[in-house]
Amino acid sequence: MPATPTPPPTTTPQTRIRPARVTMQDVARAAQVSQTTVSFVLNDRAQASIPQETRDRIWQAVTTLGYRPNAMARALRQGTSNLIGFVTDEIATTPFAGQIVRGAQDVAWQHRRILMMINTDHQSDLEQEALGALLQHQVDGIILAAMAHKAVTLPPLLEGFPVVLVNAYSEDDRVPAVVPDERRGGLEATAHLLARGHRHIGVVDNLDASMAATLRIDGHLQALTDAGITPDPTLIARVNGWQEAGFDGAMQLLRRPDRPTALFCLNDRGAMGAYEAARELGLHIPEDLSIIGFDNQEVIAAHLRPTLTTMQLPHHEMGRRGTLALLGTEPLPRGRTLLHCPLVERASVARPTAPRR
Amino acid sequence: MPATPTPPPTTTPQTRIRPARVTMQDVARAAQVSQTTVSFVLNDRAQASIPQETRDRIWQAVTTLGYRPNAMARALRQGTSNLIGFVTDEIATTPFAGQIVRGAQDVAWQHRRILMMINTDHQSDLEQEALGALLQHQVDGIILAAMAHKAVTLPPLLEGFPVVLVNAYSEDDRVPAVVPDERRGGLEATAHLLARGHRHIGVVDNLDASMAATLRIDGHLQALTDAGITPDPTLIARVNGWQEAGFDGAMQLLRRPDRPTALFCLNDRGAMGAYEAARELGLHIPEDLSIIGFDNQEVIAAHLRPTLTTMQLPHHEMGRRGTLALLGTEPLPRGRTLLHCPLVERASVARPTAPRR
Repeated sequence: MPATPTPPPTTTPQTRIRPARVTMQDVARAAQVSQTTVSFVLNDRAQASIPQETRDRIWQAVTTLGYRPNAMARALRQGTSNLIGFVTDEIATTPFAGQIVRGAQDVAWQHRRILMMINTDHQSDLEQEALGALLQHQVDGIILAAMAHKAVTLPPLLEGFPVVLVNAYSEDDRVPAVVPDERRGGLEATAHLLARGHRHIGVVDNLDASMAATLRIDGHLQALTDAGITPDPTLIARVNGWQEAGFDGAMQLLRRPDRPTALFCLNDRGAMGAYEAARELGLHIPEDLSIIGFDNQEVIAAHLRPTLTTMQLPHHEMGRRGTLALLGTEPLPRGRTLLHCPLVERASVARPTAPRR
Repeated sequence: MPATPTPPPTTTPQTRIRPARVTMQDVARAAQVSQTTVSFVLNDRAQASIPQETRDRIWQAVTTLGYRPNAMARALRQGTSNLIGFVTDEIATTPFAGQIVRGAQDVAWQHRRILMMINTDHQSDLEQEALGALLQHQVDGIILAAMAHKAVTLPPLLEGFPVVLVNAYSEDDRVPAVVPDERRGGLEATAHLLARGHRHIGVVDNLDASMAATLRIDGHLQALTDAGITPDPTLIARVNGWQEAGFDGAMQLLRRPDRPTALFCLNDRGAMGAYEAARELGLHIPEDLSIIGFDNQEVIAAHLRPTLTTMQLPHHEMGRRGTLALLGTEPLPRGRTLLHCPLVERASVARPTAPRR
């Protein structure tokens, strides 16, 4: 945001067009129902008990008359805005934000709430402003969502305000937080390869020692130990980036004389690069090399050739659970609640065969 | 959304926690400034003229005292909520929605507006409700965004209300709409291949005769005609789907005795499939085959091997322009305003060479 924001235009061609004030009584008269019924339908209370035909007639009247019930006035009376603030640090680059938003909104809708969304773009000054604005609009609570699983410092402005962290947590675990169980994900990904008979497994870590990477690798090492295999640190290729890094990391591992029979790529983009490395070396997936990813980023995982077996990041579920907690429907304890990252089995993992020479 | 929504909990453990009412005067006193200065800073008016140090002191006081200015009360006085309704039909599956949201929000922020977002998930009943809810919250205007470029019927509820359509338009062109210039995009993609010396160009249409596909192909044919080339309808492979369809379509074309030297794939996911087809046939990109895509879906286009030359869909720009129009800062005429889809040149297009046999 520029240092000196453009002041809002006082009026605009469009905003001058304003429907005439029409009362709820006018709507009730036009729809031949009681004001109470109109109020029920518009506020969507006890909806089931009002026949569809009546509801249609009321919406029809609302439309025809251009009735605009005033939610703000009601909010001032009721002391609740029926708004939930949703603040995300990133929305434009992955579909993950969208999945969290959708999970949050699915719940919000069921509870007749609307999300007031702000994307802070990783700028803390913008976050400060965003939160101030949401509080000014009397949101009932705020969801703070991070696109990459991380620890955040709770902004002082939110002291004592209902907040749930999604895909993020506060170091001191002061507020409820929903995060993916990365460690268990890494453990189960590796356990899946072990169950298929792989013993010599390489890891492509293209996540630059991020929280997610550290935990996923912890889980991986745990799974090996549980299986009585002594982890070999040189089987973890540390690279940093997306597909290109996955390619480089996979190349390091696949060129070893003792080539791994399977690769655990810490995310699907890295796995996509590993597919390219396998091709470069004439290795067929899964016959010559099994690959498992992490994230289940649909555009990649579901459409690679062969399709990618991977662990699902629970973005939709995190948005859902976070919102249910904020609304008090399914309260969460302070601190982290770990959500399972289920295995999504596709076609990139098979039993190891004698490597072609 | 279920037919009988759960009623909202009257109170919740969290929402009971409410900060005490503190007045703007308290903040002014604590920050040792005038109430006017506090009001300026909180409403972010004439910000530039107030030193950062003072603004920090005021926010500090707001934080310490837990001051919650009431935007709704002000809105009722001013007759404007400073809210913009943002309704999208799809948010979870692509980053495109996020880019439109971000473009819209960048502008909204500069004008001190907040987006009130609802994802209708392609359910018209949900859209009806969403719009009703937004109108109840007295939004200053509404952006209706579609994830796939299409014609929409303006909901009657919005008659006479400030609305801008984004990546969508109304058949009767009654309201302002910002859409990508798909035809020009198809023309310029083809022109780029022609300029590199390609004369025998295949088209992989995996978009099932969608609006975007039809217009992009129109542009393609126009470019050929302009170059004095008679279009060959059999060079357009009609398939329907994502990467897999792109693979099939490319295979059809690349197995012809008169193999095209270049493929125009109507989207990047189709191009990703075409890469696989080329590999299957031992064709190197771009030496043996040039490929150009459409969309510039970063996760694919920027990270394929070789990286994909493609046409950029202006999602961020559509969100930006739509919001500027809604605010009256850069008004748009009724009907469609076409935005350019610029060429993003990467590594998948080269001059044709004699095909290997």
